Amino acid sequence: MYLENISAPADVRSLPAEAIEGLCDELRAAIVESSAVVGGHVASNLAVVELTVALHRVFDSPRDKIVFDVSHQTYAHKMLTGRAQAFLDPSRYDEVSGFSSPSESEHDLLSMGHTSTSLSVACGLVTARELAGESYDVVAVIGDGSLSGGLAFEGLDNAAELGGGLIIVVNDNEWSIAPNHGGIYRNLAELRATRGASPHNVFRSLGLDYRYLEEGHDEAALEAALRDLRGTDHPVVLHVHTEKGHGYAPASSNPERWHHAAPFDPASGEPEAGATSTSLVDENYANVTGALLLDWMRTDPSLIAVSAATPYIMGFTPRLRAQAGRQFVDVGIAEEHAVSFVTGLARAGAHPVLGIYSTFLQRAYDQLWHDLCLNAASATILVFGASAFGTNDVTHLGFFDIPMLGTMPGLTYLAPTCIEEYLDMLSWSIGHEGGPVAIRVPVAGVESRPDFARPESYERGWEVVREGSDVAVLALGDAFPLGEAVVDELGRSGVDATLVNPRLATAPDEGSLARLAADHRVVVTIEDGILDGGFGERCAQALAAGDARVLCHGLPRAFVDRYDPRDLLASCGMTAEGIAADALAALKR
Amino acid sequence: MYLENISAPADVRSLPAEAIEGLCDELRAAIVESSAVVGGHVASNLAVVELTVALHRVFDSPRDKIVFDVSHQTYAHKMLTGRAQAFLDPSRYDEVSGFSSPSESEHDLLSMGHTSTSLSVACGLVTARELAGESYDVVAVIGDGSLSGGLAFEGLDNAAELGGGLIIVVNDNEWSIAPNHGGIYRNLAELRATRGASPHNVFRSLGLDYRYLEEGHDEAALEAALRDLRGTDHPVVLHVHTEKGHGYAPASSNPERWHHAAPFDPASGEPEAGATSTSLVDENYANVTGALLLDWMRTDPSLIAVSAATPYIMGFTPRLRAQAGRQFVDVGIAEEHAVSFVTGLARAGAHPVLGIYSTFLQRAYDQLWHDLCLNAASATILVFGASAFGTNDVTHLGFFDIPMLGTMPGLTYLAPTCIEEYLDMLSWSIGHEGGPVAIRVPVAGVESRPDFARPESYERGWEVVREGSDVAVLALGDAFPLGEAVVDELGRSGVDATLVNPRLATAPDEGSLARLAADHRVVVTIEDGILDGGFGERCAQALAAGDARVLCHGLPRAFVDRYDPRDLLASCGMTAEGIAADALAALKR
Repeated sequence: MYLENISAPADVRSLPAEAIEGLCDELRAAIVESSAVVGGHVASNLAVVELTVALHRVFDSPRDKIVFDVSHQTYAHKMLTGRAQAFLDPSRYDEVSGFSSPSESEHDLLSMGHTSTSLSVACGLVTARELAGESYDVVAVIGDGSLSGGLAFEGLDNAAELGGGLIIVVNDNEWSIAPNHGGIYRNLAELRATRGASPHNVFRSLGLDYRYLEEGHDEAALEAALRDLRGTDHPVVLHVHTEKGHGYAPASSNPERWHHAAPFDPASGEPEAGATSTSLVDENYANVTGALLLDWMRTDPSLIAVSAATPYIMGFTPRLRAQAGRQFVDVGIAEEHAVSFVTGLARAGAHPVLGIYSTFLQRAYDQLWHDLCLNAASATILVFGASAFGTNDVTHLGFFDIPMLGTMPGLTYLAPTCIEEYLDMLSWSIGHEGGPVAIRVPVAGVESRPDFARPESYERGWEVVREGSDVAVLALGDAFPLGEAVVDELGRSGVDATLVNPRLATAPDEGSLARLAADHRVVVTIEDGILDGGFGERCAQALAAGDARVLCHGLPRAFVDRYDPRDLLASCGMTAEGIAADALAALKR
Repeated sequence: MYLENISAPADVRSLPAEAIEGLCDELRAAIVESSAVVGGHVASNLAVVELTVALHRVFDSPRDKIVFDVSHQTYAHKMLTGRAQAFLDPSRYDEVSGFSSPSESEHDLLSMGHTSTSLSVACGLVTARELAGESYDVVAVIGDGSLSGGLAFEGLDNAAELGGGLIIVVNDNEWSIAPNHGGIYRNLAELRATRGASPHNVFRSLGLDYRYLEEGHDEAALEAALRDLRGTDHPVVLHVHTEKGHGYAPASSNPERWHHAAPFDPASGEPEAGATSTSLVDENYANVTGALLLDWMRTDPSLIAVSAATPYIMGFTPRLRAQAGRQFVDVGIAEEHAVSFVTGLARAGAHPVLGIYSTFLQRAYDQLWHDLCLNAASATILVFGASAFGTNDVTHLGFFDIPMLGTMPGLTYLAPTCIEEYLDMLSWSIGHEGGPVAIRVPVAGVESRPDFARPESYERGWEVVREGSDVAVLALGDAFPLGEAVVDELGRSGVDATLVNPRLATAPDEGSLARLAADHRVVVTIEDGILDGGFGERCAQALAAGDARVLCHGLPRAFVDRYDPRDLLASCGMTAEGIAADALAALKR
């Protein structure tokens, strides 16, 4: 057992060459064994085992700076930098995060989890190094999947005129989360086929030096190639061919399914009973979305589903993609393009439905503002994972969406409270010609409310679910069940509260709000999103000149990591008891 | 005179070939004459006169769709599509905007003013056309300067697998706003030098077909090249070499100064007395920023100024750039890269100061969140043009910044009320090690307040400028003079109001706020930014459970175009008289 004796990269460097194959086997086994229990990014981590060992044998981290793009492929890196027990000892599996994290180790330069950022960050490290007159190496490790993001291109483009040494390792496993999309992948394929010799070379075209290494799982060859680049005085790309899922047959034979795996049986690769295939998506909402869109496509040839590399979140499995044909487009990891593309689609008479994670929609903020909203394009955006109950990695928090979308003129942002309302809103959005509609797809569980009030239009207005007095509870979207519980709790204290489903996340109907406030002494808002700039603040502002007291409940504007969502809510006083007690106290003042 | 008889592209097509040179002369003269009076993007428009004529002779707009990237180069297009009088008749110079605008003409497909979006939009048009089984041509016209934006790369990358015809005209005039930066410009230079024959070709590398045309001002050659591409069944790049400022010696000899010109003498090209060289920047703040940063750089080698293609807004003229040497970096039009780059700089011990327009900072929303803030990088961001008094083109509105930055955990966003406070905040930010600081550089005029209160730290707390009772006025940053006027107005009605400079735009000190509210019956907030999600709402929420009435004043979340800022403010009741009257009314209730 080599791994147990490695506490720092120096221990990796001191191993004899003949030990490396055994070390790689141990790393690979630990990745599979630990992910089998807690889930993880199995396939991409298996692809970089030898590369990671070679990096730590050639470079001297943390003096030399290694930046892993997206950083979900850093399991081997973590094991080689003092964190092996978190992968070897089942009782410590929750000790480290799935992404690089400076709070864990000085070998993790930055917290990062979104793609395509590493080259720009590395350019900054190089420029600062040159200013300070220092001489360490800077290495960016970027997967082929991350290269379709425009930011990666901006980084490559700027690297070409850095005026200092930078090593860019392109880890080409031929896959993004799903299959790659875009012209650059034809170029990578041509470079692989020609062992780097093709005259068509996007890296060389940008002025970068370039090397190719076919043997991406030959640690000795990787070491030699990297050693050759140590101390380079200019930017150079080392294009390495690896295999996603290498060394574990279930993963290498189905890299898309194994991009992120929920707990599974390590022997067979079969999922544990009840485990879902990705950590972030509610399969109920995914499946019903995909099935309905496909059904509607049959009678509406202008309907087109669009994804940016995460088709499964909206239910577009390989089978559905095939059935949808040209009415489904995956643009790859290119969220900015996705939103501008959708604007063009709408401008030419199609009705696009873009399904995207809240955390990744952040990448298209300006395209939402400048392209989609400024041009009042009639498109539907399904926002997934926008909740404290979505992914809880600090890099992927999804509950900052309401204030983000709340700055967009003309955007209708709907927050359904149940699956029936979600489907009705989706259907309405596709017929709606008055500009873009975004829908906050529920995360916290599938609520059913068959008798929800179905309006003619969702552009304005809300649903008064229960008429009461004294206290009015406005419970937005996912927070609706909590609102119901608050009303019940108030009822137990003798207060007959009003319950409202506000429907619109960023534009409370000011007229209805004022009438409500006139009849109620306390207005309570509850949202599963940050308080700052959110739905509650908008209500508070609209009512602040009046007599009603307004109590807003929401999440903190903070980077929280691997939290328990119920604990997070409780820490903000967001329990039925806490909210009810606050309301009663306000009523008594 | 040909131009006066052109009311639609059909009139351009019906002109005999021998008339074209005369038409181009007229277009060029109209661009210079009208811009001399009202200012404009002179140099880029002069570069595309022949190209625009050729486009309208070959293609049949609006059936064929022509998308101009950034669209500040559409003056000739506007003249050829029924809007010539707006350039020929001085009394009608204000009739059309400087960007494409669907409200003006069916020949303007979209409102657009930010760069690098055209290819993605065009991909959407093509995809929708193919779905609908139609056959029109789609043409995207993109300048070389726009190609450094990552979104343009995402568009090129996706164009390669469109499955339909798309014509991409790369209008290469060798300039961005300032000189180009990045490896792609070496490739364009190599392609120009080899008349398109170099084996290094970034477009071909991405799988796109490619043609080169050196004679970018030979209308007949342009027509022939474009005619050859009509009805193409695949994406093809036509790389055209043009000259920025072509045909007007002052502009062609100094393209950076002439990117956007304020009113000038058309004979000499000399600026009108009192005119500034760009429309968007207060030269006082630019000059003092550049001079101070340069001065501090002399003793602090870790200080580095960063720009994304707009160095002049922070005073970095060609002379200052030369003096700063490696301590100034222009990354080109690549705002996402700029923010991630700055994160890397800070991580390696440098102190970066990024100067950027508010409207373009939108393009880096996710990099602010995921790179800069998540990693608590100690960098300074100077936000320019964040005001109703900034540029008033709908595409470039700058007053959406407070809610945008208000979602960023750990970001300190400061709003100085005067030039002395601005400089003190800038100085403090550079020594500050607690995470990123953004400063909202004043726009509405240079206010001086030498006796402003200088705190130890700007991380929290505010300045009570005047102690009063009953009414408290919180006037943020640029809105401070309006707050002073409100207090004066209230004084005339016998109310001795408190006046506060809140300093922090996104995080009012809740403790101070509560103490203030305890002593005052009415709290008034005033900000030069949108109300939704802004500073005032945050105060309203913090006080909504209490007794004080809160009256928030700010701008509408709306796309307003070419407005008068004083009229806009008045339309929201943001006059000293209006705000004071509201406060008095609230006091009496």
